[in-house]
Amino acid sequence: MRIGVIGTGSVGATIATQLVAKDHEVRLGSRTADNEKAAAWAAKVGPRASHGTFADAAGFGQLLFNCTLGEISLAALESAGRENLAGKVLVDVANPLDFSTGMTPHLFVANTDSLGERIQREFPEARVVKALNTVAAPIMVNPGKLHGEHLVFVCGNDAGAKADVTRLLQRDFGWKRVLDLGDITASRGTEAYLLLWLRLWGALKTTDFNVALAQ
Amino acid sequence: MRIGVIGTGSVGATIATQLVAKDHEVRLGSRTADNEKAAAWAAKVGPRASHGTFADAAGFGQLLFNCTLGEISLAALESAGRENLAGKVLVDVANPLDFSTGMTPHLFVANTDSLGERIQREFPEARVVKALNTVAAPIMVNPGKLHGEHLVFVCGNDAGAKADVTRLLQRDFGWKRVLDLGDITASRGTEAYLLLWLRLWGALKTTDFNVALAQ
Repeated sequence: MRIGVIGTGSVGATIATQLVAKDHEVRLGSRTADNEKAAAWAAKVGPRASHGTFADAAGFGQLLFNCTLGEISLAALESAGRENLAGKVLVDVANPLDFSTGMTPHLFVANTDSLGERIQREFPEARVVKALNTVAAPIMVNPGKLHGEHLVFVCGNDAGAKADVTRLLQRDFGWKRVLDLGDITASRGTEAYLLLWLRLWGALKTTDFNVALAQ
Repeated sequence: MRIGVIGTGSVGATIATQLVAKDHEVRLGSRTADNEKAAAWAAKVGPRASHGTFADAAGFGQLLFNCTLGEISLAALESAGRENLAGKVLVDVANPLDFSTGMTPHLFVANTDSLGERIQREFPEARVVKALNTVAAPIMVNPGKLHGEHLVFVCGNDAGAKADVTRLLQRDFGWKRVLDLGDITASRGTEAYLLLWLRLWGALKTTDFNVALAQ
């Protein structure tokens, strides 16, 4: 499948690399066409990897990942072009973190709204699925790095889009348990969990962790 | 030990009953001295159980539990009498849930502040430990109801108070893993987790669940 990854940070590069390893054709999109990091990534990862602007990546992909920082996600997706998002599954991995208040960030949208909802409202023709924002990048594409059974969540308004993303998470990223939390408003839950995740990071002194469910 | 439990809802009654079963003397406090539910509880549970006002329970206890609804916690603790809280460990189990917006509640304080912090600020001489607010009442006192290893969190500014609460959770409630998340500002994390907990409840159709950690 052709996949566009919006955002060249560690999350975008990690996801893009794994998708190429699983035989997808991947275009990594950045703010400018001549982003050196994106060019170096494409040169290293090989012929199924390419790079370009946000719009290049969004136009190329049949399925898209938003891996930008939360605070620039709406602007980056606007720059990607709403005609390039229309009808496509858009996996939103971003978290609405605001680092302006120092060492412990807070969320710039929370509780009664969420970044996932904002993106879905702003781009109503995109089929937004919030996923993977509850784990660090190395865990996103390699859940087997942690011991025992743990899980990742999906939510969104489009059942078919959630089914597509669930299959991709299972087949290409190795997730054994993907839990559907409902419509896109459930992003309020998975994004607010970041406030606990940050404290767990502080207590455990590593980002190599995730939640499992005991029942 | 003499323990005061502020609040006669299902959380307060469940915790008070378990503490009596573990040989503590427990006074259950309600808004009025003649609360029928509290009187019936004390009559049923036996000689180590008593009931009275918020102030009666707070004056009686060497250690206190706040099991009131979040929206009345500050008023209930004010009514309990700040002189009755001074110097004592106060286990804050409340969540700042606001049900005014319908089926899916939100939090009336979140993100950059928390109910645990508000209580500690309002009653600086109490030794507040936030705990147990991340699980349903039956799980609080019977973690063995769920399969596998799962955990509960403590946070607060007083290390000795956290050690006391950790021992009580282990010895009297049966928790095997109690994770210290740091100072009382970590309540922002464990309270915000409720927004995920509510979605998990919706997806799992039961409140018999908890998070475990995979590492």
